[in-house]
Amino acid sequence: MKVAVVQTNPEFGEVAANLDAVERQLKQSEGDVDVFVLPELFQTGYLFLSKQELRAVAEPVDASPTLDRLHDLAKQHNAAIAAGFAEASADGVYNSSVLMGPRGVLSIYRKIHLFHEEKLYFQPGDRPFEVVEFRGARMGLMICFDWRFPESTRSLALLGADIILHPSNLVLPWCPAAMITRAQENNLYTATANRWGVEDRGGKKHRYIGQSQIVGPRGDLLVRAGEEEDAILSAEIDLEFARNKQVGPHNNLWEDRREEFYVRASDSP
Amino acid sequence: MKVAVVQTNPEFGEVAANLDAVERQLKQSEGDVDVFVLPELFQTGYLFLSKQELRAVAEPVDASPTLDRLHDLAKQHNAAIAAGFAEASADGVYNSSVLMGPRGVLSIYRKIHLFHEEKLYFQPGDRPFEVVEFRGARMGLMICFDWRFPESTRSLALLGADIILHPSNLVLPWCPAAMITRAQENNLYTATANRWGVEDRGGKKHRYIGQSQIVGPRGDLLVRAGEEEDAILSAEIDLEFARNKQVGPHNNLWEDRREEFYVRASDSP
Repeated sequence: MKVAVVQTNPEFGEVAANLDAVERQLKQSEGDVDVFVLPELFQTGYLFLSKQELRAVAEPVDASPTLDRLHDLAKQHNAAIAAGFAEASADGVYNSSVLMGPRGVLSIYRKIHLFHEEKLYFQPGDRPFEVVEFRGARMGLMICFDWRFPESTRSLALLGADIILHPSNLVLPWCPAAMITRAQENNLYTATANRWGVEDRGGKKHRYIGQSQIVGPRGDLLVRAGEEEDAILSAEIDLEFARNKQVGPHNNLWEDRREEFYVRASDSP
Repeated sequence: MKVAVVQTNPEFGEVAANLDAVERQLKQSEGDVDVFVLPELFQTGYLFLSKQELRAVAEPVDASPTLDRLHDLAKQHNAAIAAGFAEASADGVYNSSVLMGPRGVLSIYRKIHLFHEEKLYFQPGDRPFEVVEFRGARMGLMICFDWRFPESTRSLALLGADIILHPSNLVLPWCPAAMITRAQENNLYTATANRWGVEDRGGKKHRYIGQSQIVGPRGDLLVRAGEEEDAILSAEIDLEFARNKQVGPHNNLWEDRREEFYVRASDSP
């Protein structure tokens, strides 16, 4: 099982051009990649200024040119592709990611923890975390700011994920280090595909930090891209290593959990 | 509120000498410290080879020369002291930490996640995480390997902790970085007091990694000791900063939690 993170610099609103750029990047991948991970909102850019602007480029899952194009790419590369996109629905627009396989959609995840002004434009995710299997690997999707809440990765891990596919548009500096802790505390792989570049619109400016990376179950950084470059970096995933939660002769990360002592918000004063 | 981490190198089994060494170290602290944090098992050393050996130096809370001595030091410095000790009880010995104030014991915590061969000699903690107040600051104890489970810090945070007092005997390299994530994901302070030095007994050898540290609510490393030195390092704690879980104009770490989507072991397949 070989996973690749694809670091891109989308142009805001240029959906066709962004998809063309990804098509060119995927052609540069070496060897047989099983799963490509693209950034959050890779096809539209991120810095929306109104709901109208977002709605204009959002696409419903059952009639999405972007998903059709990803499906073509998945077939062409005989691989799955995890990618963020703006998902139109009757309720509004979700900040979603798809896991697209050669035979079609494997999973759609709607971002549960919205960041910053996403709250003005997007609907918060309304469906549970989900783990799906592809070529024997159990994969869970989360998006960008979900990293800040340990429950996101933990939930996917407890549902059996071997690897977290993590499309991102990171602007804050801490996530690359935090994902090392996330991988390690759950003994699984994480593949964070971040964008790079600057968006400067309507008096707002975001600089995205790149540093797309894949981390192994012991917190080992397998690959990490630079801060300002297109990149496609891959790593081999050892499923048995991710599934064996024994982290020493006496410690098993799952058996050692003491659920009876863990406080949830609903328990606390 | 000023907190200090005290990095020591105990001699195995030399309880009186280890307490003397701490007494000398505390005298070197500058300014008025409100809370000192000492390492895990600071008074006995760590590398036990049998239950008998451990039992010989363990002390019950209600008749503990070590706790009496810590009480004297707390009065002398007009401060609280968090410190790991081997706690004798009718069930066996716990790997515990005390929070000792000038007026006596404020909290006793029995380590919930035992590491490695501790499982052969110690009883696993049998009481909930607890937060207690001292001089207006809400303090929670956890010990060493508890760091590996995000639920430890999260539980204390949800119980209202402003600061985590974290006596440790770290041998693995990842905890100092992980505690930055722990501080940040809960927006609170963490004070990890680790030991340094080597224990080499009965064919077993541990090298402890030092690097005692205090981290702020945004994941800012306030102080960190070297890998091989006695040290006493302090930082000012801003309680309002720790209590304000607003981490941007639109994000509040507590309000943004989506408990309804968080999987617990008991939910998972």
